[in-house]
Amino acid sequence: MKARPGGRAPDELRPVRITRRFTRHAEGSVLIECGDTRVLCTASVEESVPGFLRNTGRGWVTAEYGMLPRATHTRNRREAATGKQGGRTLEIQRLIGRALRAVVDLKALGERSVTIDCDVLQADGGTRTASITGAYVALVDAVEVLVRRGVLRDSPLHGQVAAVSVGIWAGQPVLDLDYAEDAEAETDMNVVMNNGGGFIEVQGTAEGHAFRRHELDELLNLAAIGIGQLQARQLEALGQG
Amino acid sequence: MKARPGGRAPDELRPVRITRRFTRHAEGSVLIECGDTRVLCTASVEESVPGFLRNTGRGWVTAEYGMLPRATHTRNRREAATGKQGGRTLEIQRLIGRALRAVVDLKALGERSVTIDCDVLQADGGTRTASITGAYVALVDAVEVLVRRGVLRDSPLHGQVAAVSVGIWAGQPVLDLDYAEDAEAETDMNVVMNNGGGFIEVQGTAEGHAFRRHELDELLNLAAIGIGQLQARQLEALGQG
Amino acid sequence: MKARPGGRAPDELRPVRITRRFTRHAEGSVLIECGDTRVLCTASVEESVPGFLRNTGRGWVTAEYGMLPRATHTRNRREAATGKQGGRTLEIQRLIGRALRAVVDLKALGERSVTIDCDVLQADGGTRTASITGAYVALVDAVEVLVRRGVLRDSPLHGQVAAVSVGIWAGQPVLDLDYAEDAEAETDMNVVMNNGGGFIEVQGTAEGHAFRRHELDELLNLAAIGIGQLQARQLEALGQG
Amino acid sequence: MKARPGGRAPDELRPVRITRRFTRHAEGSVLIECGDTRVLCTASVEESVPGFLRNTGRGWVTAEYGMLPRATHTRNRREAATGKQGGRTLEIQRLIGRALRAVVDLKALGERSVTIDCDVLQADGGTRTASITGAYVALVDAVEVLVRRGVLRDSPLHGQVAAVSVGIWAGQPVLDLDYAEDAEAETDMNVVMNNGGGFIEVQGTAEGHAFRRHELDELLNLAAIGIGQLQARQLEALGQG
Amino acid sequence: MKARPGGRAPDELRPVRITRRFTRHAEGSVLIECGDTRVLCTASVEESVPGFLRNTGRGWVTAEYGMLPRATHTRNRREAATGKQGGRTLEIQRLIGRALRAVVDLKALGERSVTIDCDVLQADGGTRTASITGAYVALVDAVEVLVRRGVLRDSPLHGQVAAVSVGIWAGQPVLDLDYAEDAEAETDMNVVMNNGGGFIEVQGTAEGHAFRRHELDELLNLAAIGIGQLQARQLEALGQG
Amino acid sequence: MKARPGGRAPDELRPVRITRRFTRHAEGSVLIECGDTRVLCTASVEESVPGFLRNTGRGWVTAEYGMLPRATHTRNRREAATGKQGGRTLEIQRLIGRALRAVVDLKALGERSVTIDCDVLQADGGTRTASITGAYVALVDAVEVLVRRGVLRDSPLHGQVAAVSVGIWAGQPVLDLDYAEDAEAETDMNVVMNNGGGFIEVQGTAEGHAFRRHELDELLNLAAIGIGQLQARQLEALGQG
Repeated sequence: MKARPGGRAPDELRPVRITRRFTRHAEGSVLIECGDTRVLCTASVEESVPGFLRNTGRGWVTAEYGMLPRATHTRNRREAATGKQGGRTLEIQRLIGRALRAVVDLKALGERSVTIDCDVLQADGGTRTASITGAYVALVDAVEVLVRRGVLRDSPLHGQVAAVSVGIWAGQPVLDLDYAEDAEAETDMNVVMNNGGGFIEVQGTAEGHAFRRHELDELLNLAAIGIGQLQARQLEALGQG
Repeated sequence: MKARPGGRAPDELRPVRITRRFTRHAEGSVLIECGDTRVLCTASVEESVPGFLRNTGRGWVTAEYGMLPRATHTRNRREAATGKQGGRTLEIQRLIGRALRAVVDLKALGERSVTIDCDVLQADGGTRTASITGAYVALVDAVEVLVRRGVLRDSPLHGQVAAVSVGIWAGQPVLDLDYAEDAEAETDMNVVMNNGGGFIEVQGTAEGHAFRRHELDELLNLAAIGIGQLQARQLEALGQG
Repeated sequence: MKARPGGRAPDELRPVRITRRFTRHAEGSVLIECGDTRVLCTASVEESVPGFLRNTGRGWVTAEYGMLPRATHTRNRREAATGKQGGRTLEIQRLIGRALRAVVDLKALGERSVTIDCDVLQADGGTRTASITGAYVALVDAVEVLVRRGVLRDSPLHGQVAAVSVGIWAGQPVLDLDYAEDAEAETDMNVVMNNGGGFIEVQGTAEGHAFRRHELDELLNLAAIGIGQLQARQLEALGQG
Repeated sequence: MKARPGGRAPDELRPVRITRRFTRHAEGSVLIECGDTRVLCTASVEESVPGFLRNTGRGWVTAEYGMLPRATHTRNRREAATGKQGGRTLEIQRLIGRALRAVVDLKALGERSVTIDCDVLQADGGTRTASITGAYVALVDAVEVLVRRGVLRDSPLHGQVAAVSVGIWAGQPVLDLDYAEDAEAETDMNVVMNNGGGFIEVQGTAEGHAFRRHELDELLNLAAIGIGQLQARQLEALGQG
Repeated sequence: MKARPGGRAPDELRPVRITRRFTRHAEGSVLIECGDTRVLCTASVEESVPGFLRNTGRGWVTAEYGMLPRATHTRNRREAATGKQGGRTLEIQRLIGRALRAVVDLKALGERSVTIDCDVLQADGGTRTASITGAYVALVDAVEVLVRRGVLRDSPLHGQVAAVSVGIWAGQPVLDLDYAEDAEAETDMNVVMNNGGGFIEVQGTAEGHAFRRHELDELLNLAAIGIGQLQARQLEALGQG
Repeated sequence: MKARPGGRAPDELRPVRITRRFTRHAEGSVLIECGDTRVLCTASVEESVPGFLRNTGRGWVTAEYGMLPRATHTRNRREAATGKQGGRTLEIQRLIGRALRAVVDLKALGERSVTIDCDVLQADGGTRTASITGAYVALVDAVEVLVRRGVLRDSPLHGQVAAVSVGIWAGQPVLDLDYAEDAEAETDMNVVMNNGGGFIEVQGTAEGHAFRRHELDELLNLAAIGIGQLQARQLEALGQG
């Protein structure tokens, strides 16, 4: 069995570091580092909702995703300069938004919005799953601000959410692929789970050859292990560990 | 156990109809009907490739997806008029493209492109999976044209691909959700498989509450049944049944 | 005198087929086929009007036009992907809208809109005139729905409208040019008339050499003949023939 | 019979003034004034052609049209700021381009382009027809520059083109409508003719009620009178009168 | 010391001509000519303000800048056609707006807007400073209209503003550079001043080598001389000289 | 004399921190912190140049500027999502590019580009001047990489550049305004200088009332002091202090 580039065991996460209050202005501001992947997640509260929710009493949680042009090995064109967000960007930010909404009681949030901006400062694989894991912590902080200010009586969060990537690399299922592994993987899967062990999102893609049912099963097992550890890290960072 | 709106069994597909040569000009032109969902899939061959493939000797297969403004219950704004394709559209057309490329030997295709346009004339749930199933047939037809014209010696297709949606509706796993079911489903999953029983893409999303592992397993079983039947229909339509 | 490609007499229309209720959701949905040209015309009613009509008590009828990318011999770029509608598209949809409004009492329609989407599934010349002829039938159906629902007491339509192309091909005036004829025509004219024999729109363009007054006269005579027959087909399709 | 706002006879043009060399840099630069309508037409020669003409040996003549934001009674949004040219603008510039190309031998022009920019400084009806009439003079000047420079041996122009609007106002056919008349007209027609009395473009639109054949005939007669006079003015301005 | 292209003294302005009421519809319409640079400045009053000023009782003065495609030696692409205003355009129109607002009491203007459109008909250097100088006169005229109509009791203008460019050309500081001088200048500075001798804007850029403090001082002296003369011309044009 | 919010002397900079190699992939990557303003400046080398420089043997240095949506007190819309960069963004990135090019011999750089991305992670006034100061250090690092790799023999940099803001706040000239000061300042000036004491760019704007010549002089004196200190910090960071 081929050794992983960083020498990790197949079921081993990269080192995770979660830094709260990374910037000053946002209600929640979290820098999450998973190995060399670094994403700044800020949560902004606004006392308004998108048109389709006006006068419904319900709130909204959404996400935007961006990558600094030189977060990657070669420079990518700045999306603001090209005039539109690419399909990959839109796909990722829709995923992050859905993942977060899965643990929020939008009625309890009231007619206000929380926007989570996930900006990748440095990319080394797994930016979308790191974004979800970091965004959850930023969301908790933003909601705490609302509770402290007396805007909300209780937190409208009814669960905890984290995400990780798994894949088949060099013929074996591995957890938390870095960029080098991801580029060679035959199958790549992003998994989002809550703290009850339920699946919120499963997105698997065969890159090389189609994957079999038993491979899928092993990948989901690995993901569950990784997400459990990530959720522990989230709680630690929040001082609830 | 609650009965499905159309009276179908949980593991029953909607009636499928595949009409080849629906329009005249395209190298492949297929109208696929899955119940009331109707998608026109045309395959266009062009003797050029995107910039990143120039002078590599490799070809490209890609897809574009669109929905006529009144394919749905209420009219949607025309994307050409709003000036951009929405995130959902981009996400779907990326999915269709990946699914098709999974069964094509791009080197054997040579430095040319096949673009599959999937335009939804009428929507009743499952438009992205119907698009994949129909697009495969259009792709076979387009490739046959290349073989007949002597451009290619053999077909560069090395597999067959089809897709279906499954979900948890009224507490039970069901196959091939129509719009009414989809709107009420707690979990929605799109599955793309090849004819060897391998998974090409699995995308599951919890709409209401997170889904459990055993639910995921049942959904994948249902998907495998449905996709087997859809692949039989594809072969029938192609006169290979 | 050179024979027309399809063997038609100079004053002979291509076979016309008008299929109502082609799709389910729209208030009016008509597939019109003029030879190999096929356009899907759907009429959508919305209980709102553009800004300039708000609080005037007047309604609006407008049109949008699109062509599926592979409706033609070679694939055209999808306008939604290029990010804007081309000049030809805008010109055509403005023409369709004006033609329809010429037979609608907008005050009687009340403060609501009918949008007619004309989407070309297959193109073989005359798509803009086929769109007008089909759109009228879809508009009648949509208005009937409003009457049946009790929203309107009477139809706000005060006339019938149809359109046809005429041109000078191989030196002779001919009716209803197909794509091959159109590409070779020296003069091309689109004519829109009502059922009282009045002109709503006349658009003639010299492609090769300028046309003389007597040629214009002959073309208008041909157009009147063709439009009379098209209006008979509209009435037949509507069960009023 | 109601008198026209400016006291003109029904077949009377507004005063026309054509000023050549209005600006310095362009190969042709003409200010045309038709009553209070003032359009600056500049012709720019470029030694390149659009992609579809490359290596064909053929040249291109095209037009762009714009209106200064406050050329009209109330300020219009600047198209550069809104991010796109409206349908009316595109329609007009396509018309101007076609009209000019009708008198140019593109093969004799050689593989180069002439772009005519028609910018309306002040609008009082008839801006598109004034643009065509002025653009022709600018084109002659630009072509002369090419001949003087020895780039071309002879002028590739094989005819003269001018345009005018006619319409039915207060029940009577009138020539060259100003803004006030145009706003009240029942029918509005733009006519483009060459100096051989041939029609290059006829675009008639019923605004109020449909127009009858005899009305169309009278309008075309008026247009022929007006265009004859405009062509005389063009020749005068060019010193060929 | 090298002589300037036009034979001007280092501290000599080009001939200035200010023509009021150049077009009919705008509340203020001024053609300013500084040598061969010609800019049409129109001021349009609208009884509304941008969103951020609604219900504040304060008004707004803003500017838009454009250049006709062939105002320059070679044709530039029309910004309306490219779909966006370039960085240079936005920078210039922001500068013009700031310069004008520096002499307006926005509270006294009341909740209405004045938009100054500065459209360059012919460019020969110094278009942004000519725009400011001309725009001031157009603004005075527009405000006078409001006073004459009784909308405002007094003019909300509390100062006069004009602008000029200065630069180091051929080693010497010169006033009011034309295009040929500007293209060769080592340093280019735009200066906006009010009639009290105060600076409203100073923008200096080293093109070739960095400029020294004493050079900056000389440039500002030259600018003060030029602006004094331009302000005299403004008053003359306004009949207050 | 009123005390500054942070208790600084009028001629005192905020604490400056320059961290090199802040991210891994870019040839130069610098985090600059000026008080609470934090900008990440990455320099990316590409072996190509914009079209206007192709085959000239000359290189290019350019900059792009962005602000994370929640770098500020309230969230700004993401420019990638609005579909264009605003005027302020374009103005700033043009300024940064000009400032850097002033110290680069583009011929010595050879036909390649260096793009400096300045992304504001947290904003507290002076983001554009901090960007220039940080970008210079990133540029030095990128150029060093080219020298180390043997691509260039010597550094094409012939000077050092830094920038600072100065302004008149509470009636007194002050150095390096933070956001709170900037919002209240009557005059705001950005100054860019090289290490020879020459001015590269001077941009002063009167916000409240026009500034006098002696005020301008005092501001430039302050700027020279600040920039001298910033250049010392740059050298220290580069290990050349």
